Amino acid sequence: MKNVEIIDRDSLVKGLYEQLSLKAGETAIVAIDMHRGHLDMDVATMPAKPEDAKRVIANAKRVLDSARAAKIPVIHVVLVYRRIAGLGSEGMVSPFWKALHAAQGETDRLTPGRKSTVREHNVEGSPGTEIIPELQRPGDYVINNKKRLDCFYGTDLRQLLDALKVKNVVLMGINTNTCVLNTAFTAFNFDYRVVVLSDCVASMYGEDLHVLGLQNVARCLGWVITNEQFFDKIKERANALQP
Amino acid sequence: MKNVEIIDRDSLVKGLYEQLSLKAGETAIVAIDMHRGHLDMDVATMPAKPEDAKRVIANAKRVLDSARAAKIPVIHVVLVYRRIAGLGSEGMVSPFWKALHAAQGETDRLTPGRKSTVREHNVEGSPGTEIIPELQRPGDYVINNKKRLDCFYGTDLRQLLDALKVKNVVLMGINTNTCVLNTAFTAFNFDYRVVVLSDCVASMYGEDLHVLGLQNVARCLGWVITNEQFFDKIKERANALQP
Amino acid sequence: MKNVEIIDRDSLVKGLYEQLSLKAGETAIVAIDMHRGHLDMDVATMPAKPEDAKRVIANAKRVLDSARAAKIPVIHVVLVYRRIAGLGSEGMVSPFWKALHAAQGETDRLTPGRKSTVREHNVEGSPGTEIIPELQRPGDYVINNKKRLDCFYGTDLRQLLDALKVKNVVLMGINTNTCVLNTAFTAFNFDYRVVVLSDCVASMYGEDLHVLGLQNVARCLGWVITNEQFFDKIKERANALQP
Amino acid sequence: MKNVEIIDRDSLVKGLYEQLSLKAGETAIVAIDMHRGHLDMDVATMPAKPEDAKRVIANAKRVLDSARAAKIPVIHVVLVYRRIAGLGSEGMVSPFWKALHAAQGETDRLTPGRKSTVREHNVEGSPGTEIIPELQRPGDYVINNKKRLDCFYGTDLRQLLDALKVKNVVLMGINTNTCVLNTAFTAFNFDYRVVVLSDCVASMYGEDLHVLGLQNVARCLGWVITNEQFFDKIKERANALQP
Repeated sequence: MKNVEIIDRDSLVKGLYEQLSLKAGETAIVAIDMHRGHLDMDVATMPAKPEDAKRVIANAKRVLDSARAAKIPVIHVVLVYRRIAGLGSEGMVSPFWKALHAAQGETDRLTPGRKSTVREHNVEGSPGTEIIPELQRPGDYVINNKKRLDCFYGTDLRQLLDALKVKNVVLMGINTNTCVLNTAFTAFNFDYRVVVLSDCVASMYGEDLHVLGLQNVARCLGWVITNEQFFDKIKERANALQP
Repeated sequence: MKNVEIIDRDSLVKGLYEQLSLKAGETAIVAIDMHRGHLDMDVATMPAKPEDAKRVIANAKRVLDSARAAKIPVIHVVLVYRRIAGLGSEGMVSPFWKALHAAQGETDRLTPGRKSTVREHNVEGSPGTEIIPELQRPGDYVINNKKRLDCFYGTDLRQLLDALKVKNVVLMGINTNTCVLNTAFTAFNFDYRVVVLSDCVASMYGEDLHVLGLQNVARCLGWVITNEQFFDKIKERANALQP
Repeated sequence: MKNVEIIDRDSLVKGLYEQLSLKAGETAIVAIDMHRGHLDMDVATMPAKPEDAKRVIANAKRVLDSARAAKIPVIHVVLVYRRIAGLGSEGMVSPFWKALHAAQGETDRLTPGRKSTVREHNVEGSPGTEIIPELQRPGDYVINNKKRLDCFYGTDLRQLLDALKVKNVVLMGINTNTCVLNTAFTAFNFDYRVVVLSDCVASMYGEDLHVLGLQNVARCLGWVITNEQFFDKIKERANALQP
Repeated sequence: MKNVEIIDRDSLVKGLYEQLSLKAGETAIVAIDMHRGHLDMDVATMPAKPEDAKRVIANAKRVLDSARAAKIPVIHVVLVYRRIAGLGSEGMVSPFWKALHAAQGETDRLTPGRKSTVREHNVEGSPGTEIIPELQRPGDYVINNKKRLDCFYGTDLRQLLDALKVKNVVLMGINTNTCVLNTAFTAFNFDYRVVVLSDCVASMYGEDLHVLGLQNVARCLGWVITNEQFFDKIKERANALQP
């Protein structure tokens, strides 16, 4: 098996961390695809690893509860597919996903060694489309018309962030190296400050790509921090603003 | 130093490869940021490794020459920044890049151990903005108003691809894990078939992110193939169409 | 009062009509903001003229019933606003709408001589957001996150049209000169064939802007046809395809 | 010939005018398609009326000179088409423009009674693509990859406006009811304050649609003002900021 040695960029990451300042009033949490289709093993059609699901749900709950208390808006973005006559899920127009289903059996697709399917994933009305209940509270915003990997594409996420006067986009959810990373790229391209919460992300594609996703954000376009670091940064800025 | 073990997905990659069919008339090559600002060590402000630059230029030249002979369109997409009064490069409105310059010395920024700068990178009129001469020929298309990591964002790349009736977007260039990967994500989101030519990409961020960028494409959204495999696929389809 | 003489472009319009061919399988109807907020006088916060509402509902019903019978997809696009703490309707971040409310009393805003309000218009959960019941049937598609004038902006309308393999976008709804016209512009820009059904559109801004909106489409970017002409074109093409 | 009576909305327009405040530092002028292809009768392929061309050039020159003196940025956006093998101008993929050329002779197309052509309009390298020389000065910004009616679509106009910290987009150019109006719609949708300079716009489609375009902006989405009113508003705000 091939091994990749991760380059040591500690001095870069530390330098950038010093520069990070998070004002609650300019910050929002974007929770990406934290639905039963990835995180509830009873119904998941693209399951994360069970231990990842457990970790991510517990850690995300802590952050989201604190965020709401600090009046930081919480935005859930969820993939949902319509059923189209003669096609099935509207996701199946993707040439890559079509090839995937033509080529591979159900345990050798996107999630190595576990069953997964695009064809039945998060079709309108199916239980997979439901947000994990302990992560959702009244007052949260929900965008449920995501169709591909980027939370901004085909949704009003940018408009909502701008209505909320957000400059700092804090990402959590599934998968680190696809929807989270793609959304991080777009948020960077739109000149938001991009933060990924390492405790609250995971990848159904494997640990290697999870690590990649985080390395890629931290060394190329944004900040990867733990829950504790996030709380510290919010407090630090709040204190700085006190008289 | 942290090591990452790459998961073996050979059966997935082989299965998908069988599904790949590349009709010349529906294919275009998108050459990303193959300019002197990355690839010519005399003027580069964000240099790839010298040996990577050499390899990528030589391999890309072979593919581009063959592509033109097969009437496959070649589209160069190049980042160029205007100079704005009171700001300098228009790139410097990015909060991440501002933090990078505030925090880090010139040899500890994006390119580990080599000098790099965003502030002076590919400003309008500077030699860095020139496409590597041996990679450009009359009849190639040029899009030179890319501003961030995604070749589609703020450009007419999608319109050009659609005018050319392209369904297969074949990517090459710099950097594997940022502009190439971000463009691969968007091309996937737009339902193009995405191919990355592994012989013709490199990353100034380090070998680890190069490898993981390729893994990410091959296992989540598209095809990573060598030059030889690309030639094979074009020939295979051309022969299939013969009487 | 100022009068505008409409230039005679009959020969242009006739010539273009001859060129129009509508294949049912490449056509979709996009019904724009046909909700109670414009069309039900009991709850409308931006009411069309009552006689226009009646006419448009009756004519649209005929077309939609026929379209469904011919397996032409029907897509409803509806504006709905979230309520945002401290702001009210998320629509109120628009500088024009803020100025409108600051300057004008409720009978001298967008709808001349009738009460109208942006501030309370189609807020999430209000009756105005409901599609006129006789215009909606099971199997219709609904996009309900439109936020401004363009049905494509911040929605997945383009993705849905492409999943349905649509090339001809047939528009109806409210208002001829704003949401219909803006959507016609964008559909044109995206290289769809744009058709507006003159019997099924109206404008709360006044008859003058309704007429001029139709003139603008017919002479600059698409086709304006009656219900009968629409049925004729669908039949004509269906017959042409018969053996 | 049909006549349209323009509804009297003077009290609305006056009320909105009172609300308009233009800070030079948050304002930019976007000059739309002020190129020889519309405005120089010797080479124009889609000519405005000669007297309109003269009026618009003279009035625009005055505003642009004053704007530069007040450090208000000037952004030229110009349509330019590539030549594509086997297709000709890349504009000719538009189904409406194809139908227009199939149906109509050269004096009965978009510009009533005058010769016009899409097919040869502003092809790369042709004189039509040149900005009218007296309207361009060093230091102006140029975006020359517009492809359809909307200045934002497929260009980096939004990114440039945001880099310049612009909130007020002041439009001039050709044509009032297409590129100016479509750009006004999109600028409105993006929550910019939209101003159209009535002295500096014209329409090759006819006086009726010119009037429509202005009425539509003034009553639905922004401000239509004269050159004098623009100077007044800039001065008024500058004075208000004095100690």
